Amino acid sequence: MARYIRYRQDSSSRYGIVEGGIVCAIEGDLFGEHRETEVAGPLEGLQLLNPCQPSKVIAVGRNYKSHLGNRTHPRHPEIFYKPLTALQDPDSPIVIPRDATEVHYEGEMVVVIGKRLKQAAPEEALAAVFGVTCGNDVTERNWQYGEQRDVQWWRAKGSDTFAPAGPAIVTGLDPDNLLLETRLNGETVQRERTSDFIFDCATFLSWISGWVTLLPGDIVYTGTPGATRRLSPGDVVEVEVENVGVLRSPVV
Amino acid sequence: MARYIRYRQDSSSRYGIVEGGIVCAIEGDLFGEHRETEVAGPLEGLQLLNPCQPSKVIAVGRNYKSHLGNRTHPRHPEIFYKPLTALQDPDSPIVIPRDATEVHYEGEMVVVIGKRLKQAAPEEALAAVFGVTCGNDVTERNWQYGEQRDVQWWRAKGSDTFAPAGPAIVTGLDPDNLLLETRLNGETVQRERTSDFIFDCATFLSWISGWVTLLPGDIVYTGTPGATRRLSPGDVVEVEVENVGVLRSPVV
Repeated sequence: MARYIRYRQDSSSRYGIVEGGIVCAIEGDLFGEHRETEVAGPLEGLQLLNPCQPSKVIAVGRNYKSHLGNRTHPRHPEIFYKPLTALQDPDSPIVIPRDATEVHYEGEMVVVIGKRLKQAAPEEALAAVFGVTCGNDVTERNWQYGEQRDVQWWRAKGSDTFAPAGPAIVTGLDPDNLLLETRLNGETVQRERTSDFIFDCATFLSWISGWVTLLPGDIVYTGTPGATRRLSPGDVVEVEVENVGVLRSPVV
Repeated sequence: MARYIRYRQDSSSRYGIVEGGIVCAIEGDLFGEHRETEVAGPLEGLQLLNPCQPSKVIAVGRNYKSHLGNRTHPRHPEIFYKPLTALQDPDSPIVIPRDATEVHYEGEMVVVIGKRLKQAAPEEALAAVFGVTCGNDVTERNWQYGEQRDVQWWRAKGSDTFAPAGPAIVTGLDPDNLLLETRLNGETVQRERTSDFIFDCATFLSWISGWVTLLPGDIVYTGTPGATRRLSPGDVVEVEVENVGVLRSPVV
């Protein structure tokens, strides 16, 4: 089990590995050959960034029975994209965009891909998971399903800051059996284990890779459980994944 | 008016500028400061790549009356994403993916963004267009609208090789008044001017930037006119934009 972060250094970013609260900088390829270099300092002193630099952000919809409502049980994983410009760093704000009336949190466990996957069998797909992190698949319900519904979810799911991720990537965990909890202003509003997935990681990663090649660093939001609520400026959302940490996002 | 290409050099890629059939390599930032370096040779001798390296690929749907059929006239631009892994180089194949039954060409004019755009007014948005190229917004109709319809168009529009682009980025053209023509095995199957857009470039770029920040190098497929047809292995599709060139894609 290793814990990786990405942090700001001057106007650039570095990867680091966290041990006992101390961060060592890393040189090389996070998903390939890399080595620890100098000590960067205590974790608390660093400005965390979203934990990797994906070439795409993928999300699985309708992946918990508790979130389906009266929608039918999906026959196979239902997939969509979030643009890279939606990524947001830990402790940085979710910005309510113009004309938005119904912005909701969606706390999720996020898997980070470590190896190229193309038409992969389920076992190969699962073995390509590098680690997991926390994510918030922020969603504007009115643009997704309401009166102002767009044909596709491009802004409902893709507006700037709608994809907070972090605080760390943790390796060596079983992504299909982790407790996920979301808190809104300290109150627990979502709490379920990823063992309740409708489609497990091996299944949805294999499914995606059947058509869309996954690359090292790509991240996959794995679906949200239960009900969600509207966010307002001043709120604070926290998404916690067991053994990973807490992704905290103020709302402005 | 300048004509830029991207081409393979060893295992890497270079940008170049084409003058009189001869390519000069470019050093620096294509969208910022750059300078011509050595002559790379005649255009015909180079292996062309899709013409830039975007951080996202955006597309506008339903942007010609001739393509609407019995769908209602959109109230505002309808937007979706294609993943970077869908990009395909000129003369490289469109691969019919597994389980696909209804893969169609969609010949389109593509705009390449040269400046960061966030909540931009229409005039500012238009001024941020670096140049234009040709694109094919390849689409599986059955996954988009048919029996096998997915909730979102992730594979209908995003399967590997479903976004050929190129052969060059040409600056100094009016993107709202260019002839677009698609040929299937030599037969003209789409032919319309971009002046028939429902939403012009200033309008849809400003609209997108209201929620999703556009970055230099991002590319926007601008919609397809008229009817489309099914592709089969052995077909050759050509998309031509006036004064830009021909994007040729064999189908396998």
